[in-house]
Amino acid sequence: MIGRDLLGIEDLTREEIELILDTSERMKEVGEREVKKVPGLRGRTIINLFFESSTRTRTSFEIAGKRLSADVINFSSSSSSLTKKESILDTARTLAAMDPDAVVVRHAVSGVPRRIADALECPVINAGDGAHEHPTQALLDLLTVRQKKGRIDGLSVAIVGDIAHSRVARSNIYGFSKLGAEVRVAGPPTMIPSDIESLGVKAFTKMRDAIDGVDVIMMLRIQTERLAGALFPSVREYSATFGLNDAKLAYAKADAIVMHPGPVNRGVELSPTIADGRPSVILDQVRNGVAVRMAVLYLLTGRAPE
Amino acid sequence: MIGRDLLGIEDLTREEIELILDTSERMKEVGEREVKKVPGLRGRTIINLFFESSTRTRTSFEIAGKRLSADVINFSSSSSSLTKKESILDTARTLAAMDPDAVVVRHAVSGVPRRIADALECPVINAGDGAHEHPTQALLDLLTVRQKKGRIDGLSVAIVGDIAHSRVARSNIYGFSKLGAEVRVAGPPTMIPSDIESLGVKAFTKMRDAIDGVDVIMMLRIQTERLAGALFPSVREYSATFGLNDAKLAYAKADAIVMHPGPVNRGVELSPTIADGRPSVILDQVRNGVAVRMAVLYLLTGRAPE
Amino acid sequence: MIGRDLLGIEDLTREEIELILDTSERMKEVGEREVKKVPGLRGRTIINLFFESSTRTRTSFEIAGKRLSADVINFSSSSSSLTKKESILDTARTLAAMDPDAVVVRHAVSGVPRRIADALECPVINAGDGAHEHPTQALLDLLTVRQKKGRIDGLSVAIVGDIAHSRVARSNIYGFSKLGAEVRVAGPPTMIPSDIESLGVKAFTKMRDAIDGVDVIMMLRIQTERLAGALFPSVREYSATFGLNDAKLAYAKADAIVMHPGPVNRGVELSPTIADGRPSVILDQVRNGVAVRMAVLYLLTGRAPE
Repeated sequence: MIGRDLLGIEDLTREEIELILDTSERMKEVGEREVKKVPGLRGRTIINLFFESSTRTRTSFEIAGKRLSADVINFSSSSSSLTKKESILDTARTLAAMDPDAVVVRHAVSGVPRRIADALECPVINAGDGAHEHPTQALLDLLTVRQKKGRIDGLSVAIVGDIAHSRVARSNIYGFSKLGAEVRVAGPPTMIPSDIESLGVKAFTKMRDAIDGVDVIMMLRIQTERLAGALFPSVREYSATFGLNDAKLAYAKADAIVMHPGPVNRGVELSPTIADGRPSVILDQVRNGVAVRMAVLYLLTGRAPE
Repeated sequence: MIGRDLLGIEDLTREEIELILDTSERMKEVGEREVKKVPGLRGRTIINLFFESSTRTRTSFEIAGKRLSADVINFSSSSSSLTKKESILDTARTLAAMDPDAVVVRHAVSGVPRRIADALECPVINAGDGAHEHPTQALLDLLTVRQKKGRIDGLSVAIVGDIAHSRVARSNIYGFSKLGAEVRVAGPPTMIPSDIESLGVKAFTKMRDAIDGVDVIMMLRIQTERLAGALFPSVREYSATFGLNDAKLAYAKADAIVMHPGPVNRGVELSPTIADGRPSVILDQVRNGVAVRMAVLYLLTGRAPE
Repeated sequence: MIGRDLLGIEDLTREEIELILDTSERMKEVGEREVKKVPGLRGRTIINLFFESSTRTRTSFEIAGKRLSADVINFSSSSSSLTKKESILDTARTLAAMDPDAVVVRHAVSGVPRRIADALECPVINAGDGAHEHPTQALLDLLTVRQKKGRIDGLSVAIVGDIAHSRVARSNIYGFSKLGAEVRVAGPPTMIPSDIESLGVKAFTKMRDAIDGVDVIMMLRIQTERLAGALFPSVREYSATFGLNDAKLAYAKADAIVMHPGPVNRGVELSPTIADGRPSVILDQVRNGVAVRMAVLYLLTGRAPE
């Protein structure tokens, strides 16, 4: 995958996803050592170009780069100060002239990472763009499920929440489908795109139907400010209908795991007992995030393993 | 001290304080070399988790970590965006899942570092919490006095200012007392806690009485916005009564030293001639800050000396 | 140049400028390697002290320092929070007490870097101060012209725009003049200082006259908010009169190059076809910026080549 961009899971084959997951397993070992550092990307420059504020994703990429011995440069800019597409491209081209080996891009508008990738020679990694894709999130989710369940093929996965506005949902739909899982989505009707089943998923408006007998429940973060508007009546009603509590969890398989991309609105998407309880694998997801980003940086910038 | 937290000087024994100071002396030599870097924490990840803005303390910890070859990640978040205790703990747990070897925490609310330490497995270092403690500040103050006076035992130290709201005062009261110094405090009556003498110090409301014959005068930074309120009439009156000038300094020992945690409000706590004059050891304090933080990071994360 | 400050091109001799450019050529090779890192400044601490926001210049210095293996500390502070000169000096002295090997300063007020340099023992590098100087920008411009034209001596260079308020213009006037080029400036009469010809340049108020037969056209970034005021009627009129398009470019030599310090206001200073076209060397300037800053950091902090 040397020299390629990572813009979305949609663009990857099953084999490529599995290569990334296998490489992530090796990278995860590095994070468990006393000396959490390998020379794989020594002398490489990675630029984190975040037009949308993010702390956990930026931190995860920064730690990933540093554990590979790369030089990591953080460049944050609110979208507001760089409103025109032209300026964004100019910023990207300017940074590219400083000869980075990879640029990690997050932007509130779908498609910006692709536009930047078209303009730059070095690999571009999408760290989340609008409601489009967040490929490293899906990869860390796949890794977490594979570790917990031993496989992905044949599992059933329910994704619950605001499907229409979620890049996490889209990337996971592609990822789990490509690796052979059955994917179901559930949420308020206004939050389910009408053409969602064309992606090969089954859509439900009752949460109970969606999670019935599943192996994995992935709860999406809800933008509570969206609930104030037309999409859904109130946080309380959302939580009662689409929040996960012990009663609803009982419909899933007895050993079902619960995922969330974080940060959790406790008491909204998840009851606190579930967020911190046995079925939750939320912190495993975070830990795997560093490993997956190490793998992606390493595979795209193309150094031989050391 | 491997694997322990550093939440306050209150928790340390005299022997532990002396171990940190002795280690700091060795670390200080590193900062005086042409190559200011030792491999002590190579491959270790240190997260600076600052919920309260700080430039000098964050920079000091960052330089300390880097001189030990650690990877240092800065994570700043205004307390306003993370108002609920729950979110702070979630943020800390998320960062902890990225396997840091130490987390340095500053927060405007007393007790937050302890709560975070309870939730995390890795060592947590308090970089200042509300009006509670600021242990590395006290350690650098102790180191500075020990270097300038050759000892701490038997010295007399006056701490002047807003004792009630000062984490610097509290940590230093514990530190100097444990190492055998006599500690006096002075300030406007509204800024002296009524039970302060239970900590073993003598409280004064006249500055002259407090500094009479002392070896060390430690001036605290005053929050001038507090002076506008009920606590004290005006900046001018505060300065006239509790600011240090040459006339007042004459009451201390002839070789007394003057300390301040910075940044100084010149002309308020200290007259400019004293801030920049011979008795001032303010820049020595800053320099020792890097050495003390190197020592603390090194002792808590537990690598053998190299 | 070991241990010296770099505050302006005005202070440098021709020989010193040429030494920096020659060193930059060697540094540029480092950026073209697979492992873009040399140990030249290992164990050195460089502080980026930016009182004025800047992303490209700060990033360029940060990458430069890291490619030399230095530890780079970013310290940003809006001028507003540090309004008094006294606080700026205190901040600088505090940082200096942490034993950096160089401090890079940007400030909106002319002369601040010099004042800081007077207070610190370590080398201070001016990264732009008010309308005074931006020496590393001029050095990278000189390097770019020397690479593209094979020489600077005997060339003619037109600088176009708001000459009066531009530190880029001032530094380049000194630099190109010292290296033997003829320098012309052009702009609206309100943007040309009345005494500019005392610097040895020719001033024009018609752009066509200024660029007639030149080898190099350097377009300055216009602060469009300034155009709303008394200095010039409108962005549109400015662009029509002092913007560069193909028709105007035809007056320059056939092989003339076009420069801009960035970021470009497309359609204002430059037509898009020129900004992205053959004569533009804008991205070469950015690339050379990293090399020039590596050279400056290296020469001032004084390590033998490795």
